[in-house]
Amino acid sequence: MKLSKRTDILPISSIRKLIPLSERAKKKGIKVFHLNMGQPDVKTPQVMIDSLKNWNINPLSYAPSGGTNEYLNALETYYHDLGFLFVNTGNTIGTIAGSEAINMAMFLTCDPGDELLVFEPYYSSYKTSATMFGIKLIPIKTTISSGFHFPSIETIEVSITPKTKAVLYSNPCNPTGTVYTKAEIKLLINLVKKLNLYLISDEVYREYTFVDRPHVSILEYMMEIPDRTILIDSLSKRYNLCGARLGNLVSLNKEIINGALKYAMSRLSGGLIDQHVGSQLVHVPKSYTKEMQKEYEARRDLMFEGLTKIPGINVTKPEGAFYIMAELPVDDAEKFCIWLLTDFQDNQETVMLAPGYGFYSDSSDGKRQVRIAYVLEKDKLKRALEILKIALKEYCHIA
Amino acid sequence: MKLSKRTDILPISSIRKLIPLSERAKKKGIKVFHLNMGQPDVKTPQVMIDSLKNWNINPLSYAPSGGTNEYLNALETYYHDLGFLFVNTGNTIGTIAGSEAINMAMFLTCDPGDELLVFEPYYSSYKTSATMFGIKLIPIKTTISSGFHFPSIETIEVSITPKTKAVLYSNPCNPTGTVYTKAEIKLLINLVKKLNLYLISDEVYREYTFVDRPHVSILEYMMEIPDRTILIDSLSKRYNLCGARLGNLVSLNKEIINGALKYAMSRLSGGLIDQHVGSQLVHVPKSYTKEMQKEYEARRDLMFEGLTKIPGINVTKPEGAFYIMAELPVDDAEKFCIWLLTDFQDNQETVMLAPGYGFYSDSSDGKRQVRIAYVLEKDKLKRALEILKIALKEYCHIA
Repeated sequence: MKLSKRTDILPISSIRKLIPLSERAKKKGIKVFHLNMGQPDVKTPQVMIDSLKNWNINPLSYAPSGGTNEYLNALETYYHDLGFLFVNTGNTIGTIAGSEAINMAMFLTCDPGDELLVFEPYYSSYKTSATMFGIKLIPIKTTISSGFHFPSIETIEVSITPKTKAVLYSNPCNPTGTVYTKAEIKLLINLVKKLNLYLISDEVYREYTFVDRPHVSILEYMMEIPDRTILIDSLSKRYNLCGARLGNLVSLNKEIINGALKYAMSRLSGGLIDQHVGSQLVHVPKSYTKEMQKEYEARRDLMFEGLTKIPGINVTKPEGAFYIMAELPVDDAEKFCIWLLTDFQDNQETVMLAPGYGFYSDSSDGKRQVRIAYVLEKDKLKRALEILKIALKEYCHIA
Repeated sequence: MKLSKRTDILPISSIRKLIPLSERAKKKGIKVFHLNMGQPDVKTPQVMIDSLKNWNINPLSYAPSGGTNEYLNALETYYHDLGFLFVNTGNTIGTIAGSEAINMAMFLTCDPGDELLVFEPYYSSYKTSATMFGIKLIPIKTTISSGFHFPSIETIEVSITPKTKAVLYSNPCNPTGTVYTKAEIKLLINLVKKLNLYLISDEVYREYTFVDRPHVSILEYMMEIPDRTILIDSLSKRYNLCGARLGNLVSLNKEIINGALKYAMSRLSGGLIDQHVGSQLVHVPKSYTKEMQKEYEARRDLMFEGLTKIPGINVTKPEGAFYIMAELPVDDAEKFCIWLLTDFQDNQETVMLAPGYGFYSDSSDGKRQVRIAYVLEKDKLKRALEILKIALKEYCHIA
């Protein structure tokens, strides 16, 4: 008796796939620098942690499916502070992290067999969610040489068919770090207007940009095309709350909000405690994300400059988020990533990277690339760069 | 531009559908007795609440996708205490509540268009999950007159086609309260053995039975048919943790566990704090669930006897869980449930019930039924029964 076919084809993210190998390395006494996952070493705001100390709600009852009032009100405050005064508790649905918001947006806009445009390389979870719901991802290629910015409108339009329902992008982009210009966002707005598509913007790294121009949120255009736009958001990276599953979806399309609420009702409730923790965002000083932004920018500089000094590595300078896609002087980056965990150590230390193919639809694309998350403090990143340099030299010598 | 077709067909649970009406009634100053939802008024064990006070983990990082070691170890202890020593952290996956375990079990065993056998009336979330994944629920009817127990094997086999992949049941049953006999469970075991199907048992109300025979868990047969059996479980009702999203799935089929882990990886992580809270189950005295069992049994007696005294109501005595399906002397129970919230009050009080059709595939079945959750303390249940009696008299007089 076989399991469902879709269980077979459900991909394992290349970000997490090699975890058993890293566990084995650690058991052998090897220290592993984790650059594979977007799990920063930065502290959650203390006011959020402290909010647990006074928890006195008993029983731990179901939360309203679409989010507690406290959580939705806190989100409203957050968007108002950004200047988006039209965002309110009526056009926002609380989700179990950004992951669920992605699932919702896909489910609501696409039926099985429908096509969803993404810019490649793209966040590996998009592939998993699409597979789960039988949606076909149509990748539009972007390249290191053009800083992973969007290609021309003509190039994009070629990929659109009668089955295309929506366009999905992350901005700043995971895994490339690209921050799209106003012209690029406008290009997408015009495209979905013209061709009657939904536009889904995943902005969970909004606060982390290192360019002179401001981040251009889909929220700036939401009043212009209220029916076609969906924002995916999350507190995970903004406040280092990856383990408190807190995300949300915003849309001015009443049907989308109603559909999202139906979806939310299907799992009854999000976490009551997590939502209380997240609601403390109203007490987090603005300096918190500002300092994080500075810290990530310094790490980006360190990582980018370090990588450019390693012979044979091809990178473009990331403009935001905390990732860099690097092309390595190897034939198969996954083999190299495995080798790093199984056959290599330098002074009992090694690094863990995410193989690049996981961010492409065709796994032969991105085969020589890795995604590096610069989520560790600078001294560790320096050492990780040193290890990578030594490892590549050794690996290329063997290969 | 229309949303996906599946958004349209995704059902809203009849348990939650009328919440906006109850909110409106409350705004008018009417007190609503909530018998619509399985949200008991019983306290969560204090040791679980207290575990938040000493929380000192910062940052709130991702938990391992399949559950924290602490949580999986606590679950292992729980099953060992029940005598199922083969359950361990290797054959258990932590889930975001029972809801996600249901989704996983369906996704893993059925492809779109595949058929899943359920006993009707069944838990309304089964319909939602099946719709989400394009699975066809095939209902096997059970009736009030036979205490909602399974029909004969011949009756069940008639519904099996080449597309049937699995059989799903809840035991004790939500919404009927039926606790299946050993003979009934054996019947299912033999059926899935003979016809090569998966058997999925949802046992989230395990502790709440009011019959002289012990609860027969699928775990008792898991060693016998290791490849075909899946247990769905949850801490929500056992420890009154509905708002801490904690469930799990157990199987001895390695492929199922691997598939469940892939599914879990797709949403990265469950809640880190919630899993810590749930892990305190090892410190909860056995008397906690024993007392709850006694309390629910007393409530069951009160509710059952009260309902039998209301003219025209047809019920069977529930054997477990905390629900009763009641057939009312009305043509359309949903209309009556709405009327209770919009047009009725007795001394500024009313009751909220879940329309029965939500627990049936064909909404004309169960049209005269409601599900009543006896989750409030006895004095409130007495008053709710009184209100129901007065309301029915008034409604039948009008209608």
